[in-house]
Parts: sequence; C-alpha cells; structure tokens
Amino acid sequence: MPTITAFATTGAAEALASSTIPRRETTSRDVKIEILYCGVCHSDLHFARNEWGFTQYPAVPGHEIVGRVTEVGDAVTRFQPGDLAGVGCLVDADLSCPHCKAGLEQFSPSMVMTYGSHDKHLNLPTYGGYSESIVVDEHFVLRIPQNLDLAGVAPLLCAGITTYSPLRHWKVGPGQKVGIVGLGGLGHMGVKFARAFGAHVVVFTTSPAKIEDALRLGAHEVVVSRHAEEMEAHTGTFDFILDAVSADHDINAYLAMLKVDGNLTLVGAPEKPLPVASFGLIMGRKSLSGSLIGGLAETQEMLDFCGEHGITADIEMIRMDEINDAYERMLKSDVKYRFVIDMTTLKES
Amino acid sequence: MPTITAFATTGAAEALASSTIPRRETTSRDVKIEILYCGVCHSDLHFARNEWGFTQYPAVPGHEIVGRVTEVGDAVTRFQPGDLAGVGCLVDADLSCPHCKAGLEQFSPSMVMTYGSHDKHLNLPTYGGYSESIVVDEHFVLRIPQNLDLAGVAPLLCAGITTYSPLRHWKVGPGQKVGIVGLGGLGHMGVKFARAFGAHVVVFTTSPAKIEDALRLGAHEVVVSRHAEEMEAHTGTFDFILDAVSADHDINAYLAMLKVDGNLTLVGAPEKPLPVASFGLIMGRKSLSGSLIGGLAETQEMLDFCGEHGITADIEMIRMDEINDAYERMLKSDVKYRFVIDMTTLKES
Repeated sequence: MPTITAFATTGAAEALASSTIPRRETTSRDVKIEILYCGVCHSDLHFARNEWGFTQYPAVPGHEIVGRVTEVGDAVTRFQPGDLAGVGCLVDADLSCPHCKAGLEQFSPSMVMTYGSHDKHLNLPTYGGYSESIVVDEHFVLRIPQNLDLAGVAPLLCAGITTYSPLRHWKVGPGQKVGIVGLGGLGHMGVKFARAFGAHVVVFTTSPAKIEDALRLGAHEVVVSRHAEEMEAHTGTFDFILDAVSADHDINAYLAMLKVDGNLTLVGAPEKPLPVASFGLIMGRKSLSGSLIGGLAETQEMLDFCGEHGITADIEMIRMDEINDAYERMLKSDVKYRFVIDMTTLKES
Repeated sequence: MPTITAFATTGAAEALASSTIPRRETTSRDVKIEILYCGVCHSDLHFARNEWGFTQYPAVPGHEIVGRVTEVGDAVTRFQPGDLAGVGCLVDADLSCPHCKAGLEQFSPSMVMTYGSHDKHLNLPTYGGYSESIVVDEHFVLRIPQNLDLAGVAPLLCAGITTYSPLRHWKVGPGQKVGIVGLGGLGHMGVKFARAFGAHVVVFTTSPAKIEDALRLGAHEVVVSRHAEEMEAHTGTFDFILDAVSADHDINAYLAMLKVDGNLTLVGAPEKPLPVASFGLIMGRKSLSGSLIGGLAETQEMLDFCGEHGITADIEMIRMDEINDAYERMLKSDVKYRFVIDMTTLKES
C-alpha cells in the first residue's frame, strides 16, 4: 500500500503536523490527483477537533481539493493524466439508490465523505486533501474550467456548491429580492451567485466594517442586523434568504423578513436548536429549510457556470505549516473569505 | 342600527351568555345570513379568554358559520334570499392588493377577521357567528353544496380549509405517504382530505384509544407516537406531514420522519417557540412551513370538492347554552371531532 505525505492530527487537542498516511492504488475506476490547492472549511476544524464526535485519529481534513491528474484507471473515460481536476466533500456512494439516481449523492445512505468516512478499498478511514495526492472514483471527480485562478477554484468544491445548490433549487433569479445572512466563506459565495443569477441581493451582517466589501462582492444593499430600524425597513420583502451563519442568531427576525410564500434556507448549522415561532411560519405560509452541499452533476454545473461567469472565491493563500494559526483566525472570522493552502508547501512544512 | 341576539362574553374570566349586539344594515355589496349552525374552533376560546391579548369586550366568537340568505344588496350577483351560504374566518379585505389578487386574502394587510377585527361600516369590532345573523360582503360568502349535512359543513369553513389548503399547496396526491399529526378538529379533516386526494395516510397520535377511529376516518396506518419502535419504523419515509397539534411536542421527531425534500407544515400553533435542530433540515433538504386557512376561491373549491366527495366534519351538536361546558371539554380534547352549535337554540338559551 503506497504511503504519502499529509498534514494530520493525532487528537482533538493536538496541532496538525506533517505525517505519513496510506492511499490506495489506483483501481480501474479511479483517478489519482496530485493536490495543488486545498481550501480550508470550518468543517475541517470541527472534524480535526472531534467536535462532531466521530473523528478517528490520525485525521486528515480537507475537502476543497484541486490538482492535476497523474494516473487514471482502465475504465476511466473523462480524465487523462495532465488534466485539472477537483474533489469536494464526497468520494463514493452506491450510485444505484434513488438519491444517487436523482443526482443527490449527498443524501445516499452509502455516501462516503472525503474525510472521516470509510475507504472500502483500504478498510481504513478516508483521509482528506491536506495531503500530497488523492485517489477517487471518477464519478466523484470534477472537471475544472481552464480560465479560472486555480487557488480561487478550490473553495467552490464546498463553499461554492453549498450556496449554488439552494439558490438554484429555490429558483432564485431576476425580479427576486434575496438576502444573504453572514458574509463569510459561504456567504460571500452566496452573494456572487445570487448576483450572477440576476436577483436583487441584500447582505445582512452584524459588522458595519463589512459594508464596503459586501457591495464590492456584488450586493445591491447591506443591512447591519444590529440596527433595528434598518431591519424594520426590509420586513416582509424577501423572496428567499440564504442563512450562512453557524453562530447563534435570531432566526425569527429573518423569517419576518420574508414575503408570503418566502423561504429561508439554512446552510450554516448552529449547534443549539433554533427557537422557531410557529406564527412566524403560519402568517405568510413561509418555509424554513436546510440544504447540504449538492450532487456531483450539480457541482459540475456550478463549476462550468463559474467558468462562464469568471467566478472564484476570494481567498487568502497560506502555507501548509500555517494551518494551525489559520484555524485560530477562522474562529475569529478573521479571513476574507477563505483560506486556501498552497499544497506545494506541504513537503517543506 | 339593528340589534340582534348573540352569545357574548364581557371579560376574559367571564362565561359566555345571551346578549344583544349591533349588526350593520345590508349594504349594496352585502349578503345577510340567518345563522343555522356555527362550529366551535379552539380560536374561539383563545379569543373569548383574551389569550392573544387583542380581545375587546363584549366579544362574540364563531367563524364556522352556515345559514340561509335572508337579504341581499343591489350589487350582489351570486346569492339570493333562500340560498344556503357560509362564512369562515374572513369578512373583508381591500381585494386590490397583490395578496387579494393572488387569492390569498388571508394575508392581505387590510384583512378583516370575522370576530375581533374592525367593522368599517359600524366603526365597531366585528362580532362572530354565535349570533342570530351576520351581514357580510358577497366576496366573503361561500356557496354550500346542497347534498351535505349542513351541521357537518360548518367546520369546513375553518378546520376544513385550514387542512385542505396546505395539502393542495404542497401537492399531496397518489403515490405519496402523508402523515397527519394529531387527531382533533383539524387533524380529522386532514385525514379525510389526504385520503380523498389519493395519498397513503398515516395518523400520528399519542392516544392508542384513537387508532380505531383514525382508521374509520380514512387512515391507512396509525402510529402511536409514544411507541419509539413504531416511530423508528417510519423514519425518513414521508413526503409530507401536516402537523395539527398546538400542544408542546417534539418537532424534530417528525422532521426525522420526512424523506429527502419532504415538507412538514404547521397548522396548529404551539405557544412556545419550537426548538428546531438545523441538522434535521440540512440533512435531506427538508422544509418546515406554516399555513393559515385559505383564500376565498380555494375555500369555495374545498366546499365544492366536499360536495362531490360527500365529505363533512364529524361533529357533536350542542345547544347554545352548552358552549361554556363545551369549551372546558375542548380543553381536554374531549370532542369527536368538532362541536357545532345548533343556532336555533340561541333565543331560548
């Protein structure tokens, strides 16, 4: 079994550090990718620190992966060595259940996550993209548009599809007023997509310091959610709100922003249950929904859309050995808007 | 200004008793209806006891009204004296705002409720159907199918449309598995409609004593929600759930019953906020919604559907002077499944 270099952690309280992990041989259905950039998602931190309770150590986070194909199996048809390729949150599933057939592999009962799941070939945990290379079934490998900055593409594989998918599913488009709550890694992509889809885009933020940036990213208006009179002025006017905040916040205040038949979709996941006032849904036939990344076909559609519209994430590049500091800065929301690891620094870190 | 006999209450802690209230003269757009039956909704009790905080006294509840037309204004085209007619929760609105034009008068900012709102003609509160007669703008008066038991029709005007509307809006039909939570005034109508729409209907109840009745009303299956193993067996299998419970209950347990893309709609309104676990919505792109009665065109559609399919509410008829006892029994859910007042007993009560 081949081994490769990776940045791993050996316990919830441990720092990430250089290590060696096994990767499977490239099977006939697999694509092997040399990883060039890996985005840093808040899930990486939750997982590294076992905040969801299922982490096995050593653990290697990373599910916003872009790189170059170095090897393909006999049965692979869509990739050849030298191609750019991406891998997101999913690396395997049965492909035969109703969810897979509907293009919603993320809800398949056999879905295998890029890290923290089980690699059936190796009978070992899956290890993520903070590593030299990855071997993935072709179905879960994405084509990358040639014209985009590759480092800025990496976050599209999670933050991008997580915001693109609900905006498409709930048919956001011209003539609609759309709110984006929270301007972080997810939120800033939500702004870019909602704007590209032709909606009137309003960013809700707790921080007046983000107004200028929100407008630069594509928002038509910015509401500072701590200013009651600004909130009041927008009551009952939104067709759709994408809520990308995982910190505690007043969900009823945002449900009140919706029009009749409006929908608020959660893509951030606050730890504590949200206290939802039933009258806030009943009065106006409103809906509160959730959305989880997106299927593979839709992820490819999103990447192609980004290629056509020149959309990438706004990133801050870091070296692999800066990852532990980056986690601390992420906890303070001190990033505009996504850290991306230059994976060429892995071997020297 | 004409006065009529009504059953009214003079304070939150007072019993309802015979009284006299004003009714406006029949204007050119109005239909005057002699009330024959009036259903008893839990809202009547909330309102009589000022549990929503906006009750003005004297207060006359009642918004499940059926009777016979006795007088019509010059401009009235759809009714003539002698016709059967019904009035539900709404008696006026501007009819020109986007909500009214969309047939959603219940969400119009100028919406006037049958009781506890403001009668612009009299400059007095609106008084409901625990009364001799009512005078209502033709737009808000419903035609009643001739073939139905009139007393059983009364609850259709609130409990009927409240359950019919969300089942239609979320397109419940053949091939779908639909849950009805709570078998009371609303829930028992939800069962009848979901069954008539061709769905596979499952009733959730806390009470094993209701199993037989649920099956009689049209349920294909009954789940006793206190039996964990029964709940477990249905996890992730529902297309749609109509939640008609206003008592505290575990909303996350019902969200877990939904399939991917499933919807749970609240028509009961628990007083306390519902603690919604965000992961329960995110994992499966599920939605939690609310629904409020229905517009006038849809209420007519519902009544016509009931006429075609022989659907009425299961009722227990009471005399007007039994209303205070009926409220106490309603608080104990001791009614199968709706009290209806025989309004011919008003004058002798």
